[in-house]
Amino acid sequence: MAKAILPDGKALEVADGASLKDVAAKIGPRLADVAVAAFVDDKLVDLSSPISGEHTVRIVTPKNPEALEVLRHSTTHVMAQAVRRLFGNDVQYTIGPALMDDFQYGFYYDFDLPAGKSITEADLEKIEEEMGRIVAEKIPFVRTELSCEEASERFIKLGQRYKAEMIGDLVRDEHVSTVSLYQQGDFLDMCRGPHLPDTGKLACFKLINTAGAYWRGDEKNKQLTRIYGVAFFSPKELEEHLARIEEARKRDHRRLGKEMDIFIFDDEVGPGLPLWMPNGGTMIEEIERLAKETEDRAGYVRVRTPHVTKENLFIRSGHLPYYAESMYPPMELEGVRYYIKPMNCPFHHKIFGARTRSYRELPLRLAEYGTCYRYEKSGELCGLLRVRSMQMNDAHIYVAEEQFEQEFIAVVRLYEEYFKLLGVDKFVMRFSTHSKAGLGKKYVDNERLWLKTEDMVRNVMVNNNVPFVEVPNEAAFYGPKIDVQIWSAVGREFTLATNQVDFAQPSRFDLAFVNRKNEPEIPLVIHRAPLSTHERMIGFLIEHFAGNFPLWLAPVQATVLPVSEKTNDYGRQVAARLKAAGLRAEFDDSADKLGAKIRRATLAKVPYMLVVGPKEAEAGAVGLRERSAGDLGAMPVDAAVAKLSAESKTRALRTGTAKP
Amino acid sequence: MAKAILPDGKALEVADGASLKDVAAKIGPRLADVAVAAFVDDKLVDLSSPISGEHTVRIVTPKNPEALEVLRHSTTHVMAQAVRRLFGNDVQYTIGPALMDDFQYGFYYDFDLPAGKSITEADLEKIEEEMGRIVAEKIPFVRTELSCEEASERFIKLGQRYKAEMIGDLVRDEHVSTVSLYQQGDFLDMCRGPHLPDTGKLACFKLINTAGAYWRGDEKNKQLTRIYGVAFFSPKELEEHLARIEEARKRDHRRLGKEMDIFIFDDEVGPGLPLWMPNGGTMIEEIERLAKETEDRAGYVRVRTPHVTKENLFIRSGHLPYYAESMYPPMELEGVRYYIKPMNCPFHHKIFGARTRSYRELPLRLAEYGTCYRYEKSGELCGLLRVRSMQMNDAHIYVAEEQFEQEFIAVVRLYEEYFKLLGVDKFVMRFSTHSKAGLGKKYVDNERLWLKTEDMVRNVMVNNNVPFVEVPNEAAFYGPKIDVQIWSAVGREFTLATNQVDFAQPSRFDLAFVNRKNEPEIPLVIHRAPLSTHERMIGFLIEHFAGNFPLWLAPVQATVLPVSEKTNDYGRQVAARLKAAGLRAEFDDSADKLGAKIRRATLAKVPYMLVVGPKEAEAGAVGLRERSAGDLGAMPVDAAVAKLSAESKTRALRTGTAKP
Repeated sequence: MAKAILPDGKALEVADGASLKDVAAKIGPRLADVAVAAFVDDKLVDLSSPISGEHTVRIVTPKNPEALEVLRHSTTHVMAQAVRRLFGNDVQYTIGPALMDDFQYGFYYDFDLPAGKSITEADLEKIEEEMGRIVAEKIPFVRTELSCEEASERFIKLGQRYKAEMIGDLVRDEHVSTVSLYQQGDFLDMCRGPHLPDTGKLACFKLINTAGAYWRGDEKNKQLTRIYGVAFFSPKELEEHLARIEEARKRDHRRLGKEMDIFIFDDEVGPGLPLWMPNGGTMIEEIERLAKETEDRAGYVRVRTPHVTKENLFIRSGHLPYYAESMYPPMELEGVRYYIKPMNCPFHHKIFGARTRSYRELPLRLAEYGTCYRYEKSGELCGLLRVRSMQMNDAHIYVAEEQFEQEFIAVVRLYEEYFKLLGVDKFVMRFSTHSKAGLGKKYVDNERLWLKTEDMVRNVMVNNNVPFVEVPNEAAFYGPKIDVQIWSAVGREFTLATNQVDFAQPSRFDLAFVNRKNEPEIPLVIHRAPLSTHERMIGFLIEHFAGNFPLWLAPVQATVLPVSEKTNDYGRQVAARLKAAGLRAEFDDSADKLGAKIRRATLAKVPYMLVVGPKEAEAGAVGLRERSAGDLGAMPVDAAVAKLSAESKTRALRTGTAKP
Repeated sequence: MAKAILPDGKALEVADGASLKDVAAKIGPRLADVAVAAFVDDKLVDLSSPISGEHTVRIVTPKNPEALEVLRHSTTHVMAQAVRRLFGNDVQYTIGPALMDDFQYGFYYDFDLPAGKSITEADLEKIEEEMGRIVAEKIPFVRTELSCEEASERFIKLGQRYKAEMIGDLVRDEHVSTVSLYQQGDFLDMCRGPHLPDTGKLACFKLINTAGAYWRGDEKNKQLTRIYGVAFFSPKELEEHLARIEEARKRDHRRLGKEMDIFIFDDEVGPGLPLWMPNGGTMIEEIERLAKETEDRAGYVRVRTPHVTKENLFIRSGHLPYYAESMYPPMELEGVRYYIKPMNCPFHHKIFGARTRSYRELPLRLAEYGTCYRYEKSGELCGLLRVRSMQMNDAHIYVAEEQFEQEFIAVVRLYEEYFKLLGVDKFVMRFSTHSKAGLGKKYVDNERLWLKTEDMVRNVMVNNNVPFVEVPNEAAFYGPKIDVQIWSAVGREFTLATNQVDFAQPSRFDLAFVNRKNEPEIPLVIHRAPLSTHERMIGFLIEHFAGNFPLWLAPVQATVLPVSEKTNDYGRQVAARLKAAGLRAEFDDSADKLGAKIRRATLAKVPYMLVVGPKEAEAGAVGLRERSAGDLGAMPVDAAVAKLSAESKTRALRTGTAKP
């Protein structure tokens, strides 16, 4: 007999060698019916796998999150089978993974088609129909394990040379001797599994599009045909997923950034180094103004530091040599190596240490929108979200220990204030601590100070009722930190900002202040960057607002649209009035019809349009339109200017919500 | 007979071989008496030099600017003679030049003293007295020319091995065969001359101080003793010069910059790379705000570009390889060379060229306070005036040819506007043009466009009555330029800013716009930076205002001084009122007496002090003090806040001049 220990702790006895499906059936026939796979001692396996001896067992059903990957994986096998049925046995199938990201399709398969054959989007319906037939046939997925040699022979016999090549690689690179194969009817694939019991278990699927993809992602290799699809257990989930992807696609910051003239990349300048067009320049300045006003109120002072420095500085800080591979390489000048800075901290420490400091100067809050440069491999760069140049909302706060709680919570509140302003409803604070094992390696070797500063941070968060999750072994090198993750309006996660405590660098830089007792005392440092970098923040904001920025952030805030040439003069006066009130206004004196002018401004996502015809000119009025709400009716110019001014000055989140 | 053609064109005949003194005497005995030297065919020579044949001759008297250098040169020889008389013949004298800068002393001589001997400032009076005796002796300066060998022998005989070494160098490095020597009595020096006729012609002189100086300026060599002095023809000039130097010393931006906590340099960061302390950060932000407001009104838009780029970009712009030695060395990344940018232009060209441009978008004025990095040798760095990092008030204006005049003159007017605001009364616009010989070498090889754009600039300046001087062969590589030189309040000259026309780079970057005829047309570019770099501008402003900045620029604008602890609460309220009005206010709650508080604020050059005692607290008033004018009397808090606000907002040049 074999024994299955179920999640509720009960033991279930079945015949030795019985399948997991038998176990499920013994629990209940309904469960056996919906079961997708099973965990045996935390390993996910096919339902058809036999059990002997004693194991913990958990049956996986569509309600469990692990089921989806199995479904998608099986669906892509079925798609490959259908393609082979339709396009012939000389179609080479290569790899076909499941994708589990909320913002990707659910699976793909790459095919090498025989000369003269092609698969286009027009073929997808036909393939879906063939897949439907395979589902109806309820063909079981049968797992076998073979020696690499035998497996390779079987694929060669089938004419599948890519599979044979992959097995060869496994043998050479990973010293593998056996591989698992899955067969459903006439289709054989190499696969780790697990899979659904049979093709009849496939649920809702949809093929989305085709694309070119190089074998092994290398453009020197042959281009294959990729088919993307998506699969869920319910049509509702599938629809929601497709809607979410479509919404994210519409909001893609790379596409919108170009369309809205916000930033560009240029081959001659280099990858990961965005150039900010005037519209981006305006957004950057608005964000900096927000930061400056907020920090002024909170008692920060502003410094400026160079972008290059002798290597000494980063040796002193401890970044070199350990962090060297994330830095740009050195430049040698007059026999000295210079680096372009990957972070601002050591420069701020130098400013703190430039002269004797008194306790009366603390907390000293040094702020700088410093531009840092870090090396990320070209292949890892992604729009504004993974870049090489970073304009950082940086500040370092030097505090005496007794000031720590008040300053740290003030920084946390600053994050919350910004998130509210930007309409970020969902965020999480992850409190990362050290690990004892990492001391002296990943972490500065001073357990006492780790425990002490971690306690300080934990207490601040608890005392002030700030929700957080604690994650061991993810701290910074020099102290505990809080990472802040936020979610955009479409639900995509961004790691935006960190808030770190540093008890190590002040000593490395010999920083001290004269305390009340007239003795030298080492300060603690809080590193913080609540608005992240301009790059990441604007990447986030484009997606979050789908380019429909709040008025204060919109590069062009209003455009004046004369209905015909006759009201051009009046229109110009209205535009001048808006500009005089500090608003970024444009004037459309093109020869286009009003409809075309409105369309153009709407496409450009300009928050407000002020339509002026002869009637408005006579009344000193405008017809106000909002980019999404449309016509808001006529009002005196004064009222429109006052309304827009108030909305911009108060940084209202939604257009049309501020009272003049 | 010899013939001297005088400046008025008259010819004067003298005996062949007669001296220039004889020529002077023949013009008039008074002239011969005051004569210092003479120009013969534009070469300045001793009065004792003989004349034969026909030459143009101009007698130099103390009224001519050339006389001063002769005087100073002769004075330093006399000083060396006096030192040798007083300290013995084993004193080695090395070099002793005249200095002609308005902000330097007038001459020095470097001595190598025998072991055990030294010259200190206490000895200077004694040396001056000995010089007085030499003057009274009226010893003639006698010039002889000798072969290098003979000259060297004479110095060796005198035990002057430095002079012998210098002659050796001249022979080896410059293939010189003869040198000129000057003898006055017992003192022999090697010198190009000319000199005064005799020591009796020395006028007013004063020895200033002693300093250490390495032989040949190389710290590996022996340290010599340098004596600085100054000489003029009249005591008034001498006094004015000393006062000017003293004033400049008090205003030295390096000293004030440190004392006023504006910037620091740090050895671990590197030479020429200033770090801006919070006070400097404030000044920078105020200057940027001025630039932004002014440029907003003038229709500029703002962009941001990276500090590093692939070398391609600077190859395309033509800076590489020619300009490479003024750039930081390259960094190699993924097989590509990257440079840190020495200028912003190519990035702005990329932004212009990022998409199709229409004539409707022109003039397109792209502004950026871009930080550039240039390599200057460590030895050439000087405070903020010669640095390696430069935050530049940059902009590039893209215009169609017919827009050129209007835009160019607008830029010139912008310079004038800034100068007025900053109280710069004296400035000169130098219009630099190409030279035909430099085409294809120093200058882009397109004579037609050089002549055309130079004509355009000249016409703009003439049509708009802008005074300028034209200087051939000093243009930029890619077009004519206007250099703007300004003078600080103490009369020191600063080359601040340039205004350049560029007809070459737009083609190199394939820039074009679609003109009214729907044809592609290449724009002209105006490069401009009227506020120069923050580094140079703030260096200038510190000296110009001696740290007594106008209110809007002052890092701390006002400080509230309670007369005792009893009015601390009221004082804090007053400080809060000032801050609420957007003023940078501090509050001195130290235990010091009022007198000490006032002294400290005055030393820190804080423009306004608001003194608050019990009487003021009761009346809701303050006692207002201005840093140099002192007590301005009591006034209600409201009135003081309004007065300071108005003065700051209007950027009044002098404190106390704006009406509330």
